[in-house]
Amino acid sequence: MFGRIDHVGVAVEDMDAALALYRDALGLPLTHRETVEEQGVDAALLDVGEGHVELLAPLAPDTPVGRHLARQGPGLHHVAYAVDDIDSELGRLREAGLRLIDESPRTGIRNSRVAFVHPRSVGGVLTEVVQPAEGH
Amino acid sequence: MFGRIDHVGVAVEDMDAALALYRDALGLPLTHRETVEEQGVDAALLDVGEGHVELLAPLAPDTPVGRHLARQGPGLHHVAYAVDDIDSELGRLREAGLRLIDESPRTGIRNSRVAFVHPRSVGGVLTEVVQPAEGH
Repeated sequence: MFGRIDHVGVAVEDMDAALALYRDALGLPLTHRETVEEQGVDAALLDVGEGHVELLAPLAPDTPVGRHLARQGPGLHHVAYAVDDIDSELGRLREAGLRLIDESPRTGIRNSRVAFVHPRSVGGVLTEVVQPAEGH
Repeated sequence: MFGRIDHVGVAVEDMDAALALYRDALGLPLTHRETVEEQGVDAALLDVGEGHVELLAPLAPDTPVGRHLARQGPGLHHVAYAVDDIDSELGRLREAGLRLIDESPRTGIRNSRVAFVHPRSVGGVLTEVVQPAEGH
């Protein structure tokens, strides 16, 4: 079961400009910054209530976020829902007929366990499920 | 100050299919359904934690969501942040140099007070601030 909206992922071309907007102008606290090599992104998490805005700047054009930017420009990239048990959740989604990009969880930002569901089976929305690490 | 992610707005072509996905397959409780004539949408709110997924089906092609669908297809449409005092919040955003679509709040779904910020000033993200009605 989806517990809450964990974050919205936002594709950005320029991380400094994005931080100037979200942290400085909008006033959201920057809580974490990480290069996630496996996903090809420089990522920043800003707190908003129990959730986050996740800013994603591609490390290279030939990465998922780089291709997204080339195709659609900057903007909303995905939405992530927090789950307590990602393994059983992926089983539930599979049984419901959804097409998983990640058949088993991989390590995401801040040591979370994450998996993506294909946007074709979620009405065009790239959808992530995330089991946050203990304490987050 | 943004209190939390209130909802993600999702543009859909077929509300019945979208409800079959989000309510029946994903298991999110449908909590509200409303035709918002002013915005030209049939809207459905599904609970996820303290937030919502807001499904938006256009009432006609020549509406904001109808044009979004024609341009980009179904998928993420906007993100909305809950605020306690939308009037002071709009003042803060204006002072920060953001371009408002709604200079003053209007009535949104479930008697909330809402205003949209232009995506050009939020890195391509159509951004809404929402002051929920009492009790929501």
